[in-house]
Amino acid sequence: MLSTMQDVPLLISRILTHGSSVHGTSQVITWTGETEPARRSYAEIGARAAQLAHALRDDLGVEGDDRVATLMWNNAEHVEAYFAIPSMGAVLHTLNLRLPAEQLTWIAGHAADRVIIVNGSLVPLLAPLLPHLTTVEHIVVTGPGDRSPLDGARARVHDYEELLAGKPTTYAWPELDERSAAAMCYTSGTTGDPKGVVYSHRSIYLHSMQVNMAESMGLTDQDTTLVVVPQFHVNAWGLPHATFMTGVNMLMPDRFLQPAPLAQMIEQERPTHAAAVPTIWQGLLAELNAHSRDVSSLTQVTIGGSACPPSLMEAFDKLGMHVRHAWGMTETSPLGTVALPPAHAVGTEEEFAYRVTQGRFPAGVEARLTGPGGERLPWDGESAGELEVRGPWIAGAYYGGVGVEALRPSEKFSEDGWLKTGDVGTISADGYLVLTDRAKDVIKSGGEWISSVELENALMAHPDVAEAAVVAVPDDKWGERPLATVVLKEGSTVDFTALREFLAGEGRIAKWQLPERWSVIEAVPKTSVGKFDKKVLRRQYAEGELDITQL
Amino acid sequence: MLSTMQDVPLLISRILTHGSSVHGTSQVITWTGETEPARRSYAEIGARAAQLAHALRDDLGVEGDDRVATLMWNNAEHVEAYFAIPSMGAVLHTLNLRLPAEQLTWIAGHAADRVIIVNGSLVPLLAPLLPHLTTVEHIVVTGPGDRSPLDGARARVHDYEELLAGKPTTYAWPELDERSAAAMCYTSGTTGDPKGVVYSHRSIYLHSMQVNMAESMGLTDQDTTLVVVPQFHVNAWGLPHATFMTGVNMLMPDRFLQPAPLAQMIEQERPTHAAAVPTIWQGLLAELNAHSRDVSSLTQVTIGGSACPPSLMEAFDKLGMHVRHAWGMTETSPLGTVALPPAHAVGTEEEFAYRVTQGRFPAGVEARLTGPGGERLPWDGESAGELEVRGPWIAGAYYGGVGVEALRPSEKFSEDGWLKTGDVGTISADGYLVLTDRAKDVIKSGGEWISSVELENALMAHPDVAEAAVVAVPDDKWGERPLATVVLKEGSTVDFTALREFLAGEGRIAKWQLPERWSVIEAVPKTSVGKFDKKVLRRQYAEGELDITQL
Repeated sequence: MLSTMQDVPLLISRILTHGSSVHGTSQVITWTGETEPARRSYAEIGARAAQLAHALRDDLGVEGDDRVATLMWNNAEHVEAYFAIPSMGAVLHTLNLRLPAEQLTWIAGHAADRVIIVNGSLVPLLAPLLPHLTTVEHIVVTGPGDRSPLDGARARVHDYEELLAGKPTTYAWPELDERSAAAMCYTSGTTGDPKGVVYSHRSIYLHSMQVNMAESMGLTDQDTTLVVVPQFHVNAWGLPHATFMTGVNMLMPDRFLQPAPLAQMIEQERPTHAAAVPTIWQGLLAELNAHSRDVSSLTQVTIGGSACPPSLMEAFDKLGMHVRHAWGMTETSPLGTVALPPAHAVGTEEEFAYRVTQGRFPAGVEARLTGPGGERLPWDGESAGELEVRGPWIAGAYYGGVGVEALRPSEKFSEDGWLKTGDVGTISADGYLVLTDRAKDVIKSGGEWISSVELENALMAHPDVAEAAVVAVPDDKWGERPLATVVLKEGSTVDFTALREFLAGEGRIAKWQLPERWSVIEAVPKTSVGKFDKKVLRRQYAEGELDITQL
Repeated sequence: MLSTMQDVPLLISRILTHGSSVHGTSQVITWTGETEPARRSYAEIGARAAQLAHALRDDLGVEGDDRVATLMWNNAEHVEAYFAIPSMGAVLHTLNLRLPAEQLTWIAGHAADRVIIVNGSLVPLLAPLLPHLTTVEHIVVTGPGDRSPLDGARARVHDYEELLAGKPTTYAWPELDERSAAAMCYTSGTTGDPKGVVYSHRSIYLHSMQVNMAESMGLTDQDTTLVVVPQFHVNAWGLPHATFMTGVNMLMPDRFLQPAPLAQMIEQERPTHAAAVPTIWQGLLAELNAHSRDVSSLTQVTIGGSACPPSLMEAFDKLGMHVRHAWGMTETSPLGTVALPPAHAVGTEEEFAYRVTQGRFPAGVEARLTGPGGERLPWDGESAGELEVRGPWIAGAYYGGVGVEALRPSEKFSEDGWLKTGDVGTISADGYLVLTDRAKDVIKSGGEWISSVELENALMAHPDVAEAAVVAVPDDKWGERPLATVVLKEGSTVDFTALREFLAGEGRIAKWQLPERWSVIEAVPKTSVGKFDKKVLRRQYAEGELDITQL
């Protein structure tokens, strides 16, 4: 039996034409460091996106699914690129300006970027890479900044505003297949080459609807959202698309991501919502404690990217900013879970316990837990397994690369197509996710998993321990066993037997999980972003560089 | 370039499995007329939907896209049918129990319903039709009521609970094509045979997401919605699907749609939201004025189906029930517009003016206005044309009927596939729709349109006029001209010239729109639901039954 429904594809051009007409007076407000930010209406963004598409096609020769990259902060021009490029059928490739030069070069080559749109302020970052960006034919520069480092570049250099000037302000956006590529983003990944995730028009459209659902961010055109999460990071969590769909105003910090200007823009522009990672928010808290600001407009904050410390959540609650925790990754567009507490917990002591979980899955994200032996684990809030997810905005493969027609399979995807997130945790009967470990950091001991994070937290609760890192080391009998490395506080005389007894005390850690191997170290090695670098510890152990005591 | 996203279909079974797991403790509360309503959790609904699917397949032989009809009030069993039937791949056909017997018979035959699930209380309605329902093989009766009228029926009669008993509580829901038929609903239509609209899994899924977006109804599992709009009427505006997607509790009135029990269930069960047509709400208002009730929980009411009188909206505002106006039709699933006022109007005098419009289009509904000559009209809030819409939950044809493989084209659809709504109105620059007329009721005069409703309202503002109806009548020079028929108040001596001058006064009506033909009538003929029956007036004019004065 045939459905009688119209067969209308879910396209980014539709979000653009809707936002720039029905919500034509909504605004993108870009911070400039001056008192008055740059304000651009959605109607203007729509007209300029059409001009950009004409320029890309007619002046720069962009056609088919050519990749057009951006190396940009969050600002109105970046929003224009977000809509113009996919709407015309090309593919937006957001380059992460925080990546090391060699990774950026590798990624731009792998994606075969033909054009890069760059903020003037980022020219000094781009210029040294240019000799290695062999596929790039055009550089389009927007906004203030010294452009002289681009002199003599092999690629042609254009001014963004000059390209747009005089172009038609409408464009006959093509009726694309909703499953065609719209935008791409590489995961930096700690091992191996970066992996490209290619979002489709369909996945972005559906994700935008989910973001706008009341259980997720639930914003309307009566809101203004401060988009702190970068547009080069998983499409700024999908906010530019979601906001254009419903007319939410966007407050864009451009390069002014320091606590003081953030506090100033909140006070001046009065956003109702913000989206940020915990570290940025931690800095803002310190700023607000040091200098009083009127931040009363900001009542809802979505925090994700990494787990938000409960103390930070409580501190913001006190300021009247209600934090909603979320979890996701590049491969999940990123909305995977949002921690809206269930009705029965609201107003009770349980509420906070729900809010500090990673959150609850929406209908668009199916979830399952896989145990060490590949078995499915129950949703009982206790059984810990690797989280696997499935859904229309979840990746099922990685981009194959230039001239590679097939997608790149990976052990990150199960045989039946689910994404293996690499995260280990539990799911409660009512669908709340609690992540405890990265899969690579759990210790697989005799067919069971031991959480390194749990052991570390228990060790760090001891008054003599400054820091502790637990890693898996090979074991003939059990496969793997935990190695506990501890940094003692100055003047401490505690011995390993005492620490082991402390772990076993009051049921903190099950007996079979207690480490046999112990080592005192000077400091836990850390990555450039301050996370424990367990690779280094594993290597030091393997090469006999650690002084090990066996209990 | 290939997208790397998973290809996961949008299916009703996914809404079911999500709602009955993550939101397993949410409830369908069915009013029974007793103090304690029947409460069923979403987990139970999920288990029973699986049992129903097993029964339909194994006991009743339902397969493929067989049609399973329901003749039911709003209740938990109807929700089970909503999910079981499409999830197993069959097609849910909701029968409108308000239709005349001959229409019901025609519709059930046209859809070739094999099974009808009926509430016991509706057996007296169904039994007399049965001899004419030649495709129906099985009747499944649920709930209390005298079943003896079914004795001797040709179709086999089953008890709902007996069918479900002992069946497995899970079902391996098939992975269907998201564009396949899920549910159907016939428009009663004032002319010609009823027309079948067939919703797909995709259209229902997308519509559910839109309903849950903050700009539409925006509910979460912290809400309970009173679903007054019948499940046999455009899927109860999509609420059962939308609520299962996010865990919103449903309060179902069953057959207790009278003002007194509605007021009682609001006071007792404390819903936060309700969805209803104006007439029901008008009755509730009278009840609340007569008997004081605590209805403070109910803060948001979605009203649609026909335009909500501003006075009703104000009366409910005073009770703390914020009315959100919406427009839609069977062919639009039905969400077409919702009147959330724009940010700049909130708290100003303009706000109410926005709230009484039909509302604003969401991204999923494209709209255009077509003038009398087929030309596109601007969104300027003044140019009136027929509203045409396009989108993934909008119909593009009608069901062809049993054995007819093609869809049924209709003049209701434009050559490029848009739905011609038959409604005439304006759209403002910011996308707010104001409907003024049905297309069949506008007067096409010299290539321009004259609104009959505008003339009627202007006439009825005259102190001597009790009622007025304006219809188009043929005119040699202009094609059509307005005929004004008026019912005068008792003792009035006003003449037509005075009325015509009144219309022309203070710029009420443009000169070229003033009627030349006038007639005094006893009463305006009305349809069974109390609307002006202009067909009768046009026929009376054509047959010379009216006493006409030409000015």
